[in-house]
Amino acid sequence: MNYHQYKACIDACLACAALCNHCASSCTQENDVTMMAECIRLDMECAATCYVTAQLLSLGSDLAKDITRLCAEICTRCADECSKHDNEHCRECADACRKCAEACKAV
Amino acid sequence: MNYHQYKACIDACLACAALCNHCASSCTQENDVTMMAECIRLDMECAATCYVTAQLLSLGSDLAKDITRLCAEICTRCADECSKHDNEHCRECADACRKCAEACKAV
Amino acid sequence: MNYHQYKACIDACLACAALCNHCASSCTQENDVTMMAECIRLDMECAATCYVTAQLLSLGSDLAKDITRLCAEICTRCADECSKHDNEHCRECADACRKCAEACKAV
Amino acid sequence: MNYHQYKACIDACLACAALCNHCASSCTQENDVTMMAECIRLDMECAATCYVTAQLLSLGSDLAKDITRLCAEICTRCADECSKHDNEHCRECADACRKCAEACKAV
Repeated sequence: MNYHQYKACIDACLACAALCNHCASSCTQENDVTMMAECIRLDMECAATCYVTAQLLSLGSDLAKDITRLCAEICTRCADECSKHDNEHCRECADACRKCAEACKAV
Repeated sequence: MNYHQYKACIDACLACAALCNHCASSCTQENDVTMMAECIRLDMECAATCYVTAQLLSLGSDLAKDITRLCAEICTRCADECSKHDNEHCRECADACRKCAEACKAV
Repeated sequence: MNYHQYKACIDACLACAALCNHCASSCTQENDVTMMAECIRLDMECAATCYVTAQLLSLGSDLAKDITRLCAEICTRCADECSKHDNEHCRECADACRKCAEACKAV
Repeated sequence: MNYHQYKACIDACLACAALCNHCASSCTQENDVTMMAECIRLDMECAATCYVTAQLLSLGSDLAKDITRLCAEICTRCADECSKHDNEHCRECADACRKCAEACKAV
């Protein structure tokens, strides 16, 4: 597999990383940040993992299967948490996380 | 400015980061890697800078202007170097770097 | 300047990135997370900027001066915010941020 | 486990990431870069993986075991490749990779 075959997954990971960063930052500006604590924490983990997954796939790494398995796991957890909150940034993030988890599983 | 207003620049940065990683890795598989040395080096710098720019814009950072100025600079250098080489990955990377430099200047 | 001449700054950036990530995560576990919102936000920006600074210095980038100037700026902001809070993670983070800002200015 | 219990592993990951970036960049400046191609490629993968491992451990992620297993694997591959080359940057990098692999296995 090379970059172009992985492109759908790379794109999903990068979109997810950006929306996780945006969600984490937006969560800190909600009225009740305590309620968003777990969401912020998972957003940070998910952004980091999605970006390294995109990076390893872009580099053509042999570890594609391992990192996408891990990325799907954290994306699913982050999507589940985001789904509990009724903010636009959480909805967008949950959607990106689910798409990314699917794309990772397809690798 | 917030995430959605920056979205075009964030997308350009992320696309550029992925193509820089792909170009760096592909350069190491060319017949004459010595000729690609500067390209690999700039790809690595550019990928790192593009990703942090996307990250700071996604986070809504006050440093948006400073980081996009720096990112436009490194993207232009990387595009100039990639343009010297007639490989598909260099052409794709040069194109993404120029688009990212434009998007960064527009911020 | 090369890697070994930059080593003190690289080490300060990496130590600061780790403590910013730790502080951000620990802030989400405080009783009143709303009070920690700005701290979390700056921790995320500072961690991202410190890591890319370490990366560009490790790569021997020509942009060392520009990125260290930006990094010193965000480290100072993060240190100022962390100094407002009386948690161990905030104190450790403020200390690492100040050391990193100094090391960046010395480059 | 928290940040302070993971500190030895976080430090080993960060030191390894910096030396992998330095090794990759230095490899591109050797006389025969073609001979260093695999080393550059693995350095890039290893730097990315080490940094995300440090980040997830600093954040207190539940995925510590999974990411350290992956990190130990890529560090071992990178150390094996670096050990084939008689440059100072490769020796330093191989040493940092082996220490990081050990620290990851200890988590």
